[in-house]
Amino acid sequence: MRSTSNSRRDFLKLAGAGVTTAMFSPLQAQRVPDPPGKKLGWAIVGLGNLSINQILPAFAKCEKSKVAAFVSGHPDKANKLALRYGVNSRNIYNYQNYDAIRDNPEIDIVYIVLPNGMHAEYSIRAAQAGKHVLTEKPMANSAKDCQDMIDASRKADRKLMVAYRCRYEPFNRAMIKMARDKELGPIKAMVSDHGFNIGDPTQWRLNKALAGGGSLMDIGIYSLQATRYITGEEPVEVNALTYSTPGDVRFREVEEMINFQLRFPSGVLANCTSSYGYSGQNRYRVITTQGWFELEPATSYTGLRMFVKKGNVTEERVLPQESHFALEMDHFSEAVMNGSDPLTPGEEGLRDLRIMTAIYEAARSGKTVKLGIT
Amino acid sequence: MRSTSNSRRDFLKLAGAGVTTAMFSPLQAQRVPDPPGKKLGWAIVGLGNLSINQILPAFAKCEKSKVAAFVSGHPDKANKLALRYGVNSRNIYNYQNYDAIRDNPEIDIVYIVLPNGMHAEYSIRAAQAGKHVLTEKPMANSAKDCQDMIDASRKADRKLMVAYRCRYEPFNRAMIKMARDKELGPIKAMVSDHGFNIGDPTQWRLNKALAGGGSLMDIGIYSLQATRYITGEEPVEVNALTYSTPGDVRFREVEEMINFQLRFPSGVLANCTSSYGYSGQNRYRVITTQGWFELEPATSYTGLRMFVKKGNVTEERVLPQESHFALEMDHFSEAVMNGSDPLTPGEEGLRDLRIMTAIYEAARSGKTVKLGIT
Repeated sequence: MRSTSNSRRDFLKLAGAGVTTAMFSPLQAQRVPDPPGKKLGWAIVGLGNLSINQILPAFAKCEKSKVAAFVSGHPDKANKLALRYGVNSRNIYNYQNYDAIRDNPEIDIVYIVLPNGMHAEYSIRAAQAGKHVLTEKPMANSAKDCQDMIDASRKADRKLMVAYRCRYEPFNRAMIKMARDKELGPIKAMVSDHGFNIGDPTQWRLNKALAGGGSLMDIGIYSLQATRYITGEEPVEVNALTYSTPGDVRFREVEEMINFQLRFPSGVLANCTSSYGYSGQNRYRVITTQGWFELEPATSYTGLRMFVKKGNVTEERVLPQESHFALEMDHFSEAVMNGSDPLTPGEEGLRDLRIMTAIYEAARSGKTVKLGIT
Repeated sequence: MRSTSNSRRDFLKLAGAGVTTAMFSPLQAQRVPDPPGKKLGWAIVGLGNLSINQILPAFAKCEKSKVAAFVSGHPDKANKLALRYGVNSRNIYNYQNYDAIRDNPEIDIVYIVLPNGMHAEYSIRAAQAGKHVLTEKPMANSAKDCQDMIDASRKADRKLMVAYRCRYEPFNRAMIKMARDKELGPIKAMVSDHGFNIGDPTQWRLNKALAGGGSLMDIGIYSLQATRYITGEEPVEVNALTYSTPGDVRFREVEEMINFQLRFPSGVLANCTSSYGYSGQNRYRVITTQGWFELEPATSYTGLRMFVKKGNVTEERVLPQESHFALEMDHFSEAVMNGSDPLTPGEEGLRDLRIMTAIYEAARSGKTVKLGIT
């Protein structure tokens, strides 16, 4: 017993020392060479906020992916970023000469980070240019567009994946494992809230043609995804109520809030809120017969927290905070290298589009909409 | 500055001393006399778990209410409790001689703590016996019964109140104040979850005639109440999905789970879950344009906690934990003494019954049910 106890104490000391090293290592500015393995070359299409602040910095954490090209309507921005990330200036494209990526062997994968309404066109053109495609969520503005994207990738014998990054990071994966292992018994209900108070009224997210819809398409989709990957089931019925503040210039074309209910075949019922008008919400709780487990924040880029309630005890499970984008991109590079299917292929994006269409229909009609299992 | 700082330190020291005294005072067995003010006499009708473990002990904290009589079908239990609480043995009634309370001037108020399906009959008989009535929630099994109770009390010129204890305790009152003061801006959404994994399948709560319904009538009503007292509005539309586990003997007559959505005139949308099949849930969150405020637990007898998120900071607001039942009973005694209206009169219980009827109808029909403002 005593030696076990000592080992544990030693381990904790080592762990503590590790934390200290990690905290101070950036100051040492130590450069380590890239690992020897092969990295696939990525073209980033669309250099907005998400690309600049999240995706490009994440390549530093990638083992199998490197940034190789940019596609942008802003040559100044593209050139600046090319300098920062060591992208060859001849690998900068615009939306006119985009199809010329076909002739660039440095580009294996194209990551579509454009407004939703442009995903279909630029994914299909990338597939036709012989490239594998990762597209941001939502996959497209309609189920038909999703199907066209799937068909185009299949025809070109290229892979297609949707950027559901939460499926690739430790916290949501731990939640999925808890659900599958039934650590707290069978799931009975889920509650998920996602939304934020949206700013600039001129942004593309508030333009129906570019965004396809309002809060549901952009942020409510996280709740929908969570209910599906936690239960491992497809919803069979949906209810919804929607509201947009009259006179609010932000919501002239798309909905502010849409709250929806889902029924799953096993009997799990889920309640979700989705809003562009309330202060940041980002959480889901899974309620079972014996307790609950939750993430809050659940789907932010960083800082996720996991809580588990079992009996009278609530515990926090502290997991590594990793780069969601690096894990997601490396997953796809690996799928391409190995010829395996990605975890979140085009078909997964299509399913969400079908359900979101049903949610809008339920809100419009005031009736429960039944979904066929696909 | 320095003297302020000292005062604060002195205050904290005194506060610390206070805590110590409070913790050890029960050991000193000090008896203090009742305050001189008048106390009204209460008859407790039904000596089940709630009466024995919550209501009767709460009289010790009451300033204006004292227990004066029991009505029970179990004379042994009634006699034991009469000894413990100093109730005169001639003030013990049963369900046969109940109407004789009319001739007992020691009884001012009757507290109905019977199964839901018996509230109407015993409230009406109490009013006819010239007594004021506090009835447990839900007020009755149907809106019609509620109306009959209101009519009987009005005819007898007696007061009628529904035991919505959360309206009388500090945490829910602080939440209501925050909502009214718009401390975090206007409310946009509410999420409320109430339920527990119910035990004994033979209990009256699972009997349709005695309970009137399942989880909604017993525990989901807390979510409904919270949405109404926080918004200060009446819902105009409701959606619902219901589920009962096939073959579960507990849910042969009443629903296990019913999740509902509410729309309020100001545009607030609420999502609520209600279950007899999941592990204890007891919370609600109010989401505004600038943050959120929540209770978890929200409506337990003790141990409530309040959290407020404003900007990037989440703070806990620590309030006094008081006896909900003592505050509720004293409120009604005071209303009777002063001839004022209680905060939660029969009309308030009737409103909930109308809405719960609409929730059941929405779940049954698969349609949004519209409610008239009453």
